[in-house]
Amino acid sequence: MRILGLDPGLTTIGIGLIEAGPGDAMEAVEWLTIKTQASDTSLSDRLAEIAEDFDAILDEMQPELAVVEQIFFARNERTAIGVAHARGVLLAALARRGIPILEPTPMQMKSAISGDGHADKRQVGSMLTRWLKMETSVTSADASDALALAVYGALMRKSLAVIR
Amino acid sequence: MRILGLDPGLTTIGIGLIEAGPGDAMEAVEWLTIKTQASDTSLSDRLAEIAEDFDAILDEMQPELAVVEQIFFARNERTAIGVAHARGVLLAALARRGIPILEPTPMQMKSAISGDGHADKRQVGSMLTRWLKMETSVTSADASDALALAVYGALMRKSLAVIR
Repeated sequence: MRILGLDPGLTTIGIGLIEAGPGDAMEAVEWLTIKTQASDTSLSDRLAEIAEDFDAILDEMQPELAVVEQIFFARNERTAIGVAHARGVLLAALARRGIPILEPTPMQMKSAISGDGHADKRQVGSMLTRWLKMETSVTSADASDALALAVYGALMRKSLAVIR
Repeated sequence: MRILGLDPGLTTIGIGLIEAGPGDAMEAVEWLTIKTQASDTSLSDRLAEIAEDFDAILDEMQPELAVVEQIFFARNERTAIGVAHARGVLLAALARRGIPILEPTPMQMKSAISGDGHADKRQVGSMLTRWLKMETSVTSADASDALALAVYGALMRKSLAVIR
């Protein structure tokens, strides 16, 4: 199963695709980021850029399940509002294609990946390379989070299958 | 000039189209709402519904300028985050079509329409019927706000022409 993890943002969106199965096997397929510039570009132009780039990515990656992180409320409200604009564009694109979506909180993701909902980025990164049996670590924090979200999806898909 | 006003929301989006010009003339062409149900529908399905309905509306209305109200921060944060998801979908759709967008705050809109940034809904509605020379008032508050935003666009387009 091709599982897409997404760490939403307005400046940077982390994107990670893994192949899960057969059994408990998981493999990282691809990871990247979409970046938009705050300078010289309006919010709406940035959102249009995200929508276009993301459509092209979905055409290419053809995920069967998407995992889109919830917005963390404790952060700056203005930032959260900006992230929510971008997140809305991503969710609408996925749902229009009929791709099922999981929306864990950062704590739920960390807890499933590392057994500790308060794990720091280094710990999550270290568990990620174990789950995916990667030899190198992913240098972009956003792409690393996105892969971790995809792994969350792989770990959850059995309970999901039961629910559906 | 066909000017589209949008009052963004997750449950209800107000939509109002006016024809502005020649000169200072303005006329209401159409007003409606997009509504999505919270019950039995996920956030992503509601956003996909909004994206599809809005694309059909843009195909039909062919606006030359759009006015999308800013999110009012003093409201409940969770509500603001929901509205921002929907607002992102609307802005991306407009920008992908190259439609210029104005983003006034509620206070800026009220001030331009009625001369009072703290005008209540009744006052804005009353000024709206005067600007648009309407004989009946618009019963939906969301559609009324959307038409008021379109009128804001008509009043601002001269200064906009100077800026561009």
